[in-house]
Amino acid sequence: MASEVNRRWLLAKRPGRQIRHDDFEWAESSLPEPAEGQMLVRNLWISLDPTLILFTAEGMQELATPIGGVMHSLGAGRVVESRHPGFVAGDVIQGWLGWEDYSVTDGLGSGPGDLPAFKIPNDLAPNQSFGALGITGMAAYFGVLDVARPRPRETFVVTSAAGGVGSVAGQIAKLQGLRVIGIASGRSRCDWVLRELGFDGAIDRQTEDVGKRMSELLPEGIDIFFDNSGLAPILDAVFDQLRPRGRVVLCGLSSWYLEDATPPGPKNYGSIIMKSARIEGVLAREYADRFPEARAALSGWIASGRMKSPEDVLVGLEKAPTALARVFEGANLGKQLVKIADV
Amino acid sequence: MASEVNRRWLLAKRPGRQIRHDDFEWAESSLPEPAEGQMLVRNLWISLDPTLILFTAEGMQELATPIGGVMHSLGAGRVVESRHPGFVAGDVIQGWLGWEDYSVTDGLGSGPGDLPAFKIPNDLAPNQSFGALGITGMAAYFGVLDVARPRPRETFVVTSAAGGVGSVAGQIAKLQGLRVIGIASGRSRCDWVLRELGFDGAIDRQTEDVGKRMSELLPEGIDIFFDNSGLAPILDAVFDQLRPRGRVVLCGLSSWYLEDATPPGPKNYGSIIMKSARIEGVLAREYADRFPEARAALSGWIASGRMKSPEDVLVGLEKAPTALARVFEGANLGKQLVKIADV
Repeated sequence: MASEVNRRWLLAKRPGRQIRHDDFEWAESSLPEPAEGQMLVRNLWISLDPTLILFTAEGMQELATPIGGVMHSLGAGRVVESRHPGFVAGDVIQGWLGWEDYSVTDGLGSGPGDLPAFKIPNDLAPNQSFGALGITGMAAYFGVLDVARPRPRETFVVTSAAGGVGSVAGQIAKLQGLRVIGIASGRSRCDWVLRELGFDGAIDRQTEDVGKRMSELLPEGIDIFFDNSGLAPILDAVFDQLRPRGRVVLCGLSSWYLEDATPPGPKNYGSIIMKSARIEGVLAREYADRFPEARAALSGWIASGRMKSPEDVLVGLEKAPTALARVFEGANLGKQLVKIADV
Repeated sequence: MASEVNRRWLLAKRPGRQIRHDDFEWAESSLPEPAEGQMLVRNLWISLDPTLILFTAEGMQELATPIGGVMHSLGAGRVVESRHPGFVAGDVIQGWLGWEDYSVTDGLGSGPGDLPAFKIPNDLAPNQSFGALGITGMAAYFGVLDVARPRPRETFVVTSAAGGVGSVAGQIAKLQGLRVIGIASGRSRCDWVLRELGFDGAIDRQTEDVGKRMSELLPEGIDIFFDNSGLAPILDAVFDQLRPRGRVVLCGLSSWYLEDATPPGPKNYGSIIMKSARIEGVLAREYADRFPEARAALSGWIASGRMKSPEDVLVGLEKAPTALARVFEGANLGKQLVKIADV
């Protein structure tokens, strides 16, 4: 096996406002050898998450991939050789893996949430460990149920509605009996959340007046705003239409990860008082001890056909930069994955 | 009694950024007569609350006192004649009353929270129905215990610390075992919250660098920020020092009631996610059904000497505009009241 070539993507330079192919450099090396406490993994799938940009950015010293280093993200792979006490050869795991054919890992995530590697249950295909059952699904589940705490017949607006978190969050809200409006970029994604996910309405933020459309679709106002994008004009419009005891769940800032700043708070911040409103952040890793509960509920909904866990798959390791760019353009419909190998 | 003169303050014009004496006009009239369903009240005390400015402001059509109308606020008085089914002559009540010797009222609050008039329990002096046991005390109680939900040994920062809400909120936080820092305007008020209320620290926002002083007094960061003022630079500094799972309770905007705008949200809004932080408004009237619970707890603390309910009293109806100006200058130490008559 030592003669096999390990194809890999290195970080060539820090990306600008757009992810470009030449931010990354294709390289080949020989297969790595696991040291004591490590394992060699045949990588099968790469998961592309918006937070990944943090790992390419300057100023994120603890997290950032060094220039010339192998890009990493959540991935799934099969253990080929293990010198790790927790895993044996043949295990299929999800963990923090390289954009490469083979990775050596100690099973510790240096990635989002420092989540350690775990064995993917035998009844799931490796790709099913992402999406609704992966870290984005966890953010959606706890963001909706624990942070927003919806009541039946409330209204729910979600941004990046066709993305990995938004598509799951909106479906969970639907299952709770809420009226769900998705905001997405482009008509095709809007049609997709209506047709594929069964949302009650969709607003194309590229061509429509979001504030006006929200008030038409939800004349009674907005109870819950689940924000994955951090777009200030949308936040301001939502705030004006927020009902008493309204909740804003801030889950992601996909429009800002390539900016030098973070978005400002709502202009009409002071109205939080008269509305008894709440703004709260959700970070999936804070709920790590309850992931089994969430996975059980989500698996049940998926198995019974009440929820979809849509995936947007590109095939081939060489497509990884393209897939990451898709996430930042909001081009993906559902969870963006790259398939590296079959098994 | 019909021959007696009713002295009163009318609203002469909408106040600007500062409350001025000539915003109000002194007048005298004959005593009003209660109609069926109304009562005639001898006013004894006036309570001056920051939210009162809303009742003088333009654009608050439903609430605002008309130009030439009698100024109103929360007050306490003795029922002289009752044609109201809920009250009898001799009852001492708290309610929405005029800045005048005698008011006729139907007992419905058109004021803050539309709280109806209630009979002040016999074991309380009328002035004790304000302060810790009044609407400002209710905001402090539910803002700290229900919204912030403190845990022992957490850190707590409160603005307008010498004011009606802040002085009670900080004391409640102390009783929960928190480390409490007050921000106030001027050295004398800072000394007062340290000496009189037993806070752990005080910062003079007129002469000190608030952000720097907070980080010195609370090097471990801030768990709870209880904001009565809405001062944007302080909010931004707090946000930078907010700990994971930190809470910002927005209770008042005393620095903004005379402005045309409300304050913006925190500049570093996006950090809510990584901090799993929460910003929530508190409006006392939302908890009206639980006021008895709050009053029982607060009365107990006061009776046992563990809490003070400081009052800042001016004597004489003619002092009402001056007292209101004091609240907006932050000049008051504790609950600002005006005493009109003894009984």
